[in-house]
Amino acid sequence: MRTSKYLLSTLKETPNDAEVVSHQLMLRAGMIRRLASGLYTWLPTGLRVLRKVENIVRQEIDNAGAIETLMPVVQPFELWEETGRSEKMGPELLRFTDRHVRPFVLSPTAEEVITSLVRNEVSSYKQLPLNLYQIQTKFRDERRPRFGVMRAREFCMMDAYSFDINKEGLQKSYDAMHDAYCKAFDRMGLEYRPVLADSGAIGGSGSQEFHVLAESGEDLIAFSTESDYAANIEKAEAVAPTTERAAPTQEMTTVDTPNAKTIAELVEQHGIAIEKTVKTLFVKASDEVDADIIALIIRGDHELNEVKAENLPQVASPLEMADEAQLRDLIGAGAGSLGPVGLELPFIVDRSVAVMSDFGTGANIDGKHFFGVNWDRDVQLGQVEDLRNVVEGDPSPCGKGTLQLKRGIEVGHIFQLGTAYSEAMNCGVLDANGKNVILEMGCYGIGVSRVVASAIEQNNDEYGIVWPEAIAPFTVAIVPMNMHKSERVKEAAEKLYAELTAMGIEVLFDDRKERPGVMFKDIELIGIPHTIVIGDRSMDEGHFEYKNRRANTKEAVEMANIVEHIKAQLS
Amino acid sequence: MRTSKYLLSTLKETPNDAEVVSHQLMLRAGMIRRLASGLYTWLPTGLRVLRKVENIVRQEIDNAGAIETLMPVVQPFELWEETGRSEKMGPELLRFTDRHVRPFVLSPTAEEVITSLVRNEVSSYKQLPLNLYQIQTKFRDERRPRFGVMRAREFCMMDAYSFDINKEGLQKSYDAMHDAYCKAFDRMGLEYRPVLADSGAIGGSGSQEFHVLAESGEDLIAFSTESDYAANIEKAEAVAPTTERAAPTQEMTTVDTPNAKTIAELVEQHGIAIEKTVKTLFVKASDEVDADIIALIIRGDHELNEVKAENLPQVASPLEMADEAQLRDLIGAGAGSLGPVGLELPFIVDRSVAVMSDFGTGANIDGKHFFGVNWDRDVQLGQVEDLRNVVEGDPSPCGKGTLQLKRGIEVGHIFQLGTAYSEAMNCGVLDANGKNVILEMGCYGIGVSRVVASAIEQNNDEYGIVWPEAIAPFTVAIVPMNMHKSERVKEAAEKLYAELTAMGIEVLFDDRKERPGVMFKDIELIGIPHTIVIGDRSMDEGHFEYKNRRANTKEAVEMANIVEHIKAQLS
Repeated sequence: MRTSKYLLSTLKETPNDAEVVSHQLMLRAGMIRRLASGLYTWLPTGLRVLRKVENIVRQEIDNAGAIETLMPVVQPFELWEETGRSEKMGPELLRFTDRHVRPFVLSPTAEEVITSLVRNEVSSYKQLPLNLYQIQTKFRDERRPRFGVMRAREFCMMDAYSFDINKEGLQKSYDAMHDAYCKAFDRMGLEYRPVLADSGAIGGSGSQEFHVLAESGEDLIAFSTESDYAANIEKAEAVAPTTERAAPTQEMTTVDTPNAKTIAELVEQHGIAIEKTVKTLFVKASDEVDADIIALIIRGDHELNEVKAENLPQVASPLEMADEAQLRDLIGAGAGSLGPVGLELPFIVDRSVAVMSDFGTGANIDGKHFFGVNWDRDVQLGQVEDLRNVVEGDPSPCGKGTLQLKRGIEVGHIFQLGTAYSEAMNCGVLDANGKNVILEMGCYGIGVSRVVASAIEQNNDEYGIVWPEAIAPFTVAIVPMNMHKSERVKEAAEKLYAELTAMGIEVLFDDRKERPGVMFKDIELIGIPHTIVIGDRSMDEGHFEYKNRRANTKEAVEMANIVEHIKAQLS
Repeated sequence: MRTSKYLLSTLKETPNDAEVVSHQLMLRAGMIRRLASGLYTWLPTGLRVLRKVENIVRQEIDNAGAIETLMPVVQPFELWEETGRSEKMGPELLRFTDRHVRPFVLSPTAEEVITSLVRNEVSSYKQLPLNLYQIQTKFRDERRPRFGVMRAREFCMMDAYSFDINKEGLQKSYDAMHDAYCKAFDRMGLEYRPVLADSGAIGGSGSQEFHVLAESGEDLIAFSTESDYAANIEKAEAVAPTTERAAPTQEMTTVDTPNAKTIAELVEQHGIAIEKTVKTLFVKASDEVDADIIALIIRGDHELNEVKAENLPQVASPLEMADEAQLRDLIGAGAGSLGPVGLELPFIVDRSVAVMSDFGTGANIDGKHFFGVNWDRDVQLGQVEDLRNVVEGDPSPCGKGTLQLKRGIEVGHIFQLGTAYSEAMNCGVLDANGKNVILEMGCYGIGVSRVVASAIEQNNDEYGIVWPEAIAPFTVAIVPMNMHKSERVKEAAEKLYAELTAMGIEVLFDDRKERPGVMFKDIELIGIPHTIVIGDRSMDEGHFEYKNRRANTKEAVEMANIVEHIKAQLS
């Protein structure tokens, strides 16, 4: 491709409204342009990357035995009522009516459509296993779209759906997709991790997310220092301490704490160690509990894990914190002075809290705390659960090593759905004995547009994007210096362009009438892995200059050897 | 691909609701399934064809120098107000609001989005010419979707938009796309014609449609018997007769015609030749005319060309026929008895009518006609225009040969828009003198999903689809007979499958436990060009059977030569 016949659209300035580096660089490198909130046009450079990611995904998903289909973006609303997801999805599911006032949605995903297809097309166990996928435009009406294509409303997604006769089959289909994802992300040259994820409201028996590691990632992932164990923070188990609870050494005393509204203030003003304090949080209780709210007690230096809390049968879903007025009404004190001692409401204690002794807690009287509290002596311990986020140094749930935390960007998800959808939509086949069996389903997604942004979050420097070769918009750039004045430079550049292109290498030939500095900046910003600089001065010495974007190195290469040199660089 | 791991989904019966052969065969061959009115899921076999068409289109459009982008399916409604198309498109433009009640549309095309992009990204004539395209989902809320993907609501379309500094540039861009379309349709193996088309309301200076020829086509195309001239029936000019008008030989007489409400009845009951009669049609007049309605007069055996009529400045657009009550009110007679003699309303006469003499026409009195009417003697001739559809045998407007009519399916369109959009959206650049110049635009579309259906309309027989090789879902089918009983057949089939696949040939290996008859029927229905039958009986004689789908021939091929034989068949 010649830049003179291309839409480069690079920007010198970083646009104001772009918060994260991938969004900034995608705008600056001429990859995307905003059409409206959460809606982006992919410019030629961006689309080249998107298609490379898409093709790698397609090949690996094909290799895993899945078969490609294409479902409409516009789906009848009735199907979403069959599974009850029309309610669950809330306003993210964009609804509208057609000219005949029939209700439709813009597809955020396609479980309903595919299940309805399979229940019509597949009737015998002999047609199984079956895994159907598509790579298609999706739409989610995000309340607050941001970070460019990272959290856009319209995006490109690979979504696959497997159908099996039993759980063993599902496990095989799931494992095959796990492997396909690994191969795809490996080929893209991304540093990523498959991590255990919570199965959430949908139920199902297994679920993993694939995260591209990047400091800017929105998600926290916990890794074992000594095994393959990895889980997102929502899922990572905080194992019960192996230490026994120490015997009480202090009497319980009431302390005036008029200025301690937070744990930090309590620690600072009253000299108590933060590990000797507890936080008492009140959330809406489920119907299983004979009270409106229920307390969750975690150590002062820990954070509540909302997903773990929500998964408890005693807690209402979605999780809802009690408000100040409700607390005052039921307990007579406000947040900051609450605790389990003398509490007339049910509570659940975190595993770490269950082994504490001589600890401090709110006294359920404004401006007062109890210090030297001990379980069973001062208050009955009761139910103990894993309620908190893990922290660095926690023992790994796998039994080996301790946990480390890293940040990641979720780019893929694989999920054992079980029969949640097939049951609701009556999708079954006849088995070998002629009996109808409801199918075991899995669903699998890769956010193709998001992979592009996350690859940039992981691969960039002060000059711009540093593409992994497999997903770079171009593999090689040719930058001729003053080509429009030097016939020799022009000839050499044209010849090399023709030669590399004929070899199937994707070359961007910068044939603009621009100063060399402008050209170098653009090529670096766009992140092309290999650059060949052709100029009179180096040609006088019989060489071209080769620049490696990732290593940020230059070297002189003999003119006659340049093609071989480039070939040697390509992975 | 092995059929055992594929979703074949062929149907034995022709579905009732499919009217045209392509729709029937696409359902029967397992290419598509209906999700809702005008919405289709592409099953694996259908998608394979769709992608082949898409890739050929992409390659040829790339070769023409256009650059691929990807625009959102969801577009802000405001953009459509800028050009006034929000009104013009009517209810085909599907509108909805997002969760924040902001108005959007589902993209039926992207002139507005691309023009808004180019006005932001392109500022200098040095960046031109520029041709940007996408291959993307489109939506048109058709009032009555039908014929499967032929007239669906959601469909896949290639749409390109060229931007040039002047009309010469536009002509070059237009010509390059014309060539690219020809190359693409040639490669697909389709019989097609580029035909002149009317530029319609949008104006612009040139427009051609690409039609796949098929008896079942909805459109009529006129061809010269002796030149390349081709135009759709709307556009094809009925040239003025070169014969002079004959002198009158009859007196004008009034004839009682109480039972002749139509031309056919008049001819039958009164012995007048149909070429000696005229039809007088009344349509709503434009503001240019000092009357509510205006008459259009064509020969009794001709048809009014509504597009030609609508393009007259005297006729209101869109074309609207006057109703019976209005005619009776203004003229005092009903349709069937109307004519130019003594008419107090303006009229325009077709070129063929202008050379008639001694003709019959309604007398503007119910149940009466005038016979022996002559222009200028009995009624002033006035304005003469081309008002009618051409018929077979008309002289070609190119001056060579006569016109023949064929039926076609419109699969592509190229259009010189001129400045219609760039003016409305203020899309200009600075020229070499630093002056702002509004850009000359062209727009170009190929209905990718429609090409698939039209290819089937053109290529089918009693057994099913007969794919041109370049767009066949698979190139070769291997059909082993009783593979599950004969180890020798199994081995030979597996070996051949591996060999052909390794050569990059797309093979469907029918490894199902089905009777040979079932397999043959499916392979024929799907339309795979080349089939190799492997069976014990022919192997005893040292050969396999080769079947050619299009020629409908079988031949025995020596086992050792089968790969060479297949290679020789491939184009």
